[in-house]
Amino acid sequence: MKIAGTHYRTIWPEGGSIRVIDQTRLPFSFETILLKSADDAAFAIKTMIVRGAPLIGATAAWGVALAMRKDASDANLVATLRELMATRPTAVNLRWALQRIGVHLHPLPPSARADAAWTEAQRICDEDVECCRNIGAYGVQLLQDIARRKQRVNVLTHCNAGWLATVDFGTALSPIYQAYDADIDVHVWVDETRPRNQGASLTAYELGSHGVPHTVIADNAGGHLMQHGEVDIVIVGADRVTASGDAANKIGTYLKALAAVDNGVPFYVAMPSSTIDWTIHDGVRDIPIEQRDAREVTHMTGQLADGGIAEMLVVAPGSSAANPAFDVTPARLITGFITERGICAATHEGLQWLFPDKAA
Amino acid sequence: MKIAGTHYRTIWPEGGSIRVIDQTRLPFSFETILLKSADDAAFAIKTMIVRGAPLIGATAAWGVALAMRKDASDANLVATLRELMATRPTAVNLRWALQRIGVHLHPLPPSARADAAWTEAQRICDEDVECCRNIGAYGVQLLQDIARRKQRVNVLTHCNAGWLATVDFGTALSPIYQAYDADIDVHVWVDETRPRNQGASLTAYELGSHGVPHTVIADNAGGHLMQHGEVDIVIVGADRVTASGDAANKIGTYLKALAAVDNGVPFYVAMPSSTIDWTIHDGVRDIPIEQRDAREVTHMTGQLADGGIAEMLVVAPGSSAANPAFDVTPARLITGFITERGICAATHEGLQWLFPDKAA
Repeated sequence: MKIAGTHYRTIWPEGGSIRVIDQTRLPFSFETILLKSADDAAFAIKTMIVRGAPLIGATAAWGVALAMRKDASDANLVATLRELMATRPTAVNLRWALQRIGVHLHPLPPSARADAAWTEAQRICDEDVECCRNIGAYGVQLLQDIARRKQRVNVLTHCNAGWLATVDFGTALSPIYQAYDADIDVHVWVDETRPRNQGASLTAYELGSHGVPHTVIADNAGGHLMQHGEVDIVIVGADRVTASGDAANKIGTYLKALAAVDNGVPFYVAMPSSTIDWTIHDGVRDIPIEQRDAREVTHMTGQLADGGIAEMLVVAPGSSAANPAFDVTPARLITGFITERGICAATHEGLQWLFPDKAA
Repeated sequence: MKIAGTHYRTIWPEGGSIRVIDQTRLPFSFETILLKSADDAAFAIKTMIVRGAPLIGATAAWGVALAMRKDASDANLVATLRELMATRPTAVNLRWALQRIGVHLHPLPPSARADAAWTEAQRICDEDVECCRNIGAYGVQLLQDIARRKQRVNVLTHCNAGWLATVDFGTALSPIYQAYDADIDVHVWVDETRPRNQGASLTAYELGSHGVPHTVIADNAGGHLMQHGEVDIVIVGADRVTASGDAANKIGTYLKALAAVDNGVPFYVAMPSSTIDWTIHDGVRDIPIEQRDAREVTHMTGQLADGGIAEMLVVAPGSSAANPAFDVTPARLITGFITERGICAATHEGLQWLFPDKAA
C-alpha cells in the first residue's frame, strides 16, 4: 500500500539481504531495517520490528533463506528452523511458513538449498499478497451489502490486521481498502489496542496514509458504540484459528465479539487459510497464549511536544502488571470467516467446505 | 485510608476553605489544593482534580457552602446550584447532593444559610464515609464466601471506585479493604481503564498504599483471565443506576459484565443508594453519556525516566479520536448491587425491597 504516494510492501529482498519496515518506529517515524542473517530475522520477530501473523511467517521464511546462504548443512537448517520457531508461540503462520520451507529444503542437496530457499521465501511473499487481495475481494461484498441499506458503513477493528501485518493489503483491512477504493462511504472505528497500541499507531497510520476516514477509540468504547447502533460490522484478523473455528487474536478481541453478539452486530474474522491450525479444536484450552513483558503495560512510548520520542511510566510506581498478549474468541461468537477462498461459517463444517484439501 | 501511615479523607474543611487531594497529580505526586469558592469547586470537578461520583457530590456540596459564605442570596444560591450542576452530566450523586443542599437551604433566611450549608456539607461527607463503611461490611461477605472455597480470592475491578472516588473507604474497593484487613488472601486485577488510566494510576496507587496485593492489566485482558478461571468476582462502582438496575459506569464496564456472564463469574456493582436515579428505567436509552475531550485518547500523561511528568501523543499524527466516558451495563448482566443497606438483585424489585422509602 502507499506511503506518501510510494507503493511499499512490508518486506523485500535487497541484494543478499532483506529489508523490512521498522514497525516499532511507526507512526512517528518511517524507517527501514536490513536483515542480514537468521539471527536478525529472529530478533526482528521477537522485538516486533515485524509483527502480524502473515508477516511473521514471511520474515521467518526469509530468515531461513538468509541462513542457507551462509551454511546450507542439515545441522544449520534444523537449528535455524528451531531458532525461528521459538520467537513467538501463538502465531500458527510462523510454524506453517517454517514447515513449508523446511519440507521444501530438506530433501535437496545442501548445494541447492540457498537458491531454493530464496525462491520459496519470495513465493511465500507473493502468495501472501495474492491471498490478501482475495480476502479483500470477498470481504468487500459484506460492506457493499451494508452500503445498500445505509449511507455510511461503520466498521470496527481491533489491533492491526492491515497491510503492515502482512506483505501487502492486509487481512481485516483489505476489504476496507477495496471498499474505499470503490467509493463506498466507509469509516473505521480503530481500537487503540493496549498495551502496544497497534491500532492507534499502526492501523490509524496506514488508514490515514491511504486516506480512509477513521476514528481512534479506547478499547473500552466499542461496546457502548455498538449499543447505540454506531457499528455496522466488526472485522478483525487472527493469529491462529482452530479446526472448530475458535480464533486467537490480539488480547481484547473476545470482549468485542461478546459485545457484537449482544447487539446483533456481525463479527467477522479475516485470515488466510495458513492461519488455520487443523490439529486442534478447543482454542481456549489448547492455544498457547504468549505472556509478554509487563513493561508493555507499565510503560508507554509516544511523542513529546518537542517531537522527541520517549517512554514513560503510566502505572502507580511499584505496582506490577500482567500482559497476556492474545485471547481466544470461541467460534460460537463469530459470524463468519473471510478467507482467500471465500466466506464461511465459523464451524468445522464451514472451514472444511472451503478447504477440503487442507482439512484434517 | 492511609498514605505513608497517615490517615486522610479525600476532602476536608481547612479554615474557611476546602482542601482536596489533587487526583490529576497521582500516582506520581501527592499534592493537595485549596478550594476557596464555588468556581474553584466547579473547576476541580470539571478538570477531574476530584472525581468519582460520591466525591463529586461532596465537592459540589462544599462548593455551595463556600458560595453561601460570600453571598447567601436566593439569586446566588440558584446560580451556584446551576453552575455546579453543569460540571459533569453523568453522575447522579452530583444532582442528589445539590438537590439535598438546595432543598435544605432554600427555606432558610439568607443570614442562616452560610452556617447551615457548612454543616450540611460536612454531614454529607460524614454520611458518605459511614455509607462506604457499610458497603464494605456487606460486600466483604461475598469475598468471605469465596475464601471458604479457595485459598486466594481474585477480584477484578474497573476504573477507581476506591476511597479516592469517595470521601473515605470507597465503594467497590471498600469490601476489598475490609477483606484484606480481616486477613483474607485477596488479590485485585486492576483494569488500567483507558483513556484516563484511573485504574493504573489511582486504584493501583491506593491499593498499593494500603498494602493490598494487586496486578495492573490492560482493559483488554479481563475476558481472557475469566476464561481461564483467574477471576472469582468482579466488583465495580457506578455513576448512575436506574430504577430498573441498569448501571452507568466508566466506559468499558459493560464489556467486563459481558465476559463475566459468559464465564459464570459473579458481577457486582457497589454503590450508595444516592447513585440510584429512580426517575429513569432504560439506562442505555436515557442516561446521558458524557463525551470528553479527544485529547484524553490521543495523549497520555506519565513519568519520564528522569522523574519528570510529561504528556505525549500516542496515536498516529493527524488521526482523530472519540471519547465516550461512560457506558451502561444492562441490569440483566449484573449479579447484584452492594449498597449501604445490604445486597440486592439488579432489578426494580430488588432495589425497592432495600429502599422502600426512596423508590418512586
